[in-house]
Amino acid sequence: MKISSILFSISILIGSQSLAQKPLKVPEKTLPIPTTVSPQMQKLIGAPYRTDWDVLPQTGEQWKVIADSDAKAAQKTLPELAKLMKVKVEPIIIEGVRAYMITPETIAPHNNNRILINMHGGCYVLNAREAGLPEAVMLAGFGGYKVVAVDYRMPPEAFYPGALDDGMKVWKALLKTNKPENIGIFGTSAGGALTLAMVLKAKSENIPMPGAIASGTPMSDVTKTGDTFYTNELVDNILVSRDGFCDAGTKVYANGHSLEDPLLSPVYGDLTGFPPTILTSGTRDLLLSNTVRVHRKLRQAKVETALHVYEGQSHAHYLFDVNAPETKEVFTEIADFLDKYMGQ
Amino acid sequence: MKISSILFSISILIGSQSLAQKPLKVPEKTLPIPTTVSPQMQKLIGAPYRTDWDVLPQTGEQWKVIADSDAKAAQKTLPELAKLMKVKVEPIIIEGVRAYMITPETIAPHNNNRILINMHGGCYVLNAREAGLPEAVMLAGFGGYKVVAVDYRMPPEAFYPGALDDGMKVWKALLKTNKPENIGIFGTSAGGALTLAMVLKAKSENIPMPGAIASGTPMSDVTKTGDTFYTNELVDNILVSRDGFCDAGTKVYANGHSLEDPLLSPVYGDLTGFPPTILTSGTRDLLLSNTVRVHRKLRQAKVETALHVYEGQSHAHYLFDVNAPETKEVFTEIADFLDKYMGQ
Repeated sequence: MKISSILFSISILIGSQSLAQKPLKVPEKTLPIPTTVSPQMQKLIGAPYRTDWDVLPQTGEQWKVIADSDAKAAQKTLPELAKLMKVKVEPIIIEGVRAYMITPETIAPHNNNRILINMHGGCYVLNAREAGLPEAVMLAGFGGYKVVAVDYRMPPEAFYPGALDDGMKVWKALLKTNKPENIGIFGTSAGGALTLAMVLKAKSENIPMPGAIASGTPMSDVTKTGDTFYTNELVDNILVSRDGFCDAGTKVYANGHSLEDPLLSPVYGDLTGFPPTILTSGTRDLLLSNTVRVHRKLRQAKVETALHVYEGQSHAHYLFDVNAPETKEVFTEIADFLDKYMGQ
Repeated sequence: MKISSILFSISILIGSQSLAQKPLKVPEKTLPIPTTVSPQMQKLIGAPYRTDWDVLPQTGEQWKVIADSDAKAAQKTLPELAKLMKVKVEPIIIEGVRAYMITPETIAPHNNNRILINMHGGCYVLNAREAGLPEAVMLAGFGGYKVVAVDYRMPPEAFYPGALDDGMKVWKALLKTNKPENIGIFGTSAGGALTLAMVLKAKSENIPMPGAIASGTPMSDVTKTGDTFYTNELVDNILVSRDGFCDAGTKVYANGHSLEDPLLSPVYGDLTGFPPTILTSGTRDLLLSNTVRVHRKLRQAKVETALHVYEGQSHAHYLFDVNAPETKEVFTEIADFLDKYMGQ
């Protein structure tokens, strides 16, 4: 019997030249539901693919029908979540931008002079109004922070850079009455990308940096570049595929603008000078590569940064069940990270 | 058209109960070589599965034939690596345990009073003698640290807990002449698990903690529990499968001892009081779950810890090509982490 132990030793200096490179064919396989997560998370991981993940609306008008329907449904369920999280939700207009002020019943004393901006997810076309609020409500509730959740304009009302512009307007307004380091920004998916893009934009406009930011499984590369777009294809049960609904929505938002623009694909931006940044993803996340690539660029730029990868989770699974222990853990860890670096 | 946006909103309170859970069937797919890594790393990622990954020796004697053959080959190639890394390699015996002293030509001044212990990888049965040294040589070279690389006994010379005992003997010997906080411990794969197991063992014996440790893609759960044992099966081109050579080697080492013992599967240990710990893995790593589960337990235990997940890398790919920029980056990041927390 002969096993050539290329593991660690022999190939280290001489081996790589002689290796035949080719794409890897992976046979069909069955993935059991992991036993290493909570029962609530097992339910999410064991769920079928997101309904209509492969339906690809081509216009802002088509997306609006869906977003409106979702928002209507969320209007009914949000009060229950807000009650559970013990937060007050009030619509407000800031510099002409629609938003919601989320205020916890109890604000942690060290958070008295702090405020967070939330940019919701939804591929730039979904989660209008109340449908966009669960993440903001959960961080306000679990973390004891005041949160301004930006209900940014979406297609067909506005295309790129509408969402970004709305986020910047809210931020600039808050800067008038808050110290820069007492402001934090966070979001997931498109909201995670918008969080990064806002900081890039702020750098170019010499706007002072926020105290810290949290970017969850960011759509940091919408050119579909990155290894887990392939390895986690049809494994992630939320995004499912790089050619699914989320890509379709992003294209409608981009409206012909280059997808490689760092304001749409922030992994291509210069991340030097970024504030402390926490990144969250999961082992089944289609955007795990999008997340770890941002993490690496931040480290290369000497930015204080933390990466948390949760066992078995697909894209943004930590937003789906407020009762899953992992959900509380994710939001508590984000809140603690922000607390460590934000001003008071 | 109707898309129910379970993404973020509607299901958050009411949805999870109604989901039908079942294992996920993933069709055959082809994984291109990622464009997001260096050409050297592309060669490693595009390489075929490790030779004889599915050959499963059942005895220590069988493994020794392979380990001896690898060691003989490594004896010829190691001097080239040592020269490139500008380190001196000398065999020594410490308290009866075989080891190598790796001394960089230039020791960074802040590392003058520091020493690292390396536990090599190889599934507890491979990488004897020179074959076990590349990781130690690279951290010594890239980081400017003195390293004692433990050439621990392997089957059939010794079975569990032989490797662990040898590591502990070396550590205790070094404690006689070094401050505890000036000692660091590191290793990859089985060595990553041994690093964690040594700290668990030290806790139980009231041995003072090291300054910091580095555990690369640790075999932290050898019961084959963890989601990426499935999602990255036949994706990771080094370990390839949870039922491959590495599992076979571990079983021979365990020699009937329970695989759930935290000294063999340290993810089941109490990680409270651990020193600062850096963990390294890759998106294609079969042991990504093993790594992120340890990270989560360390965070839950309030240990200072960092997780670095490298794009596209399979198990321990960062050990394979000294000329890949990612290799230098991994070792420099590990060296910097140790430097931040170790005493001087």
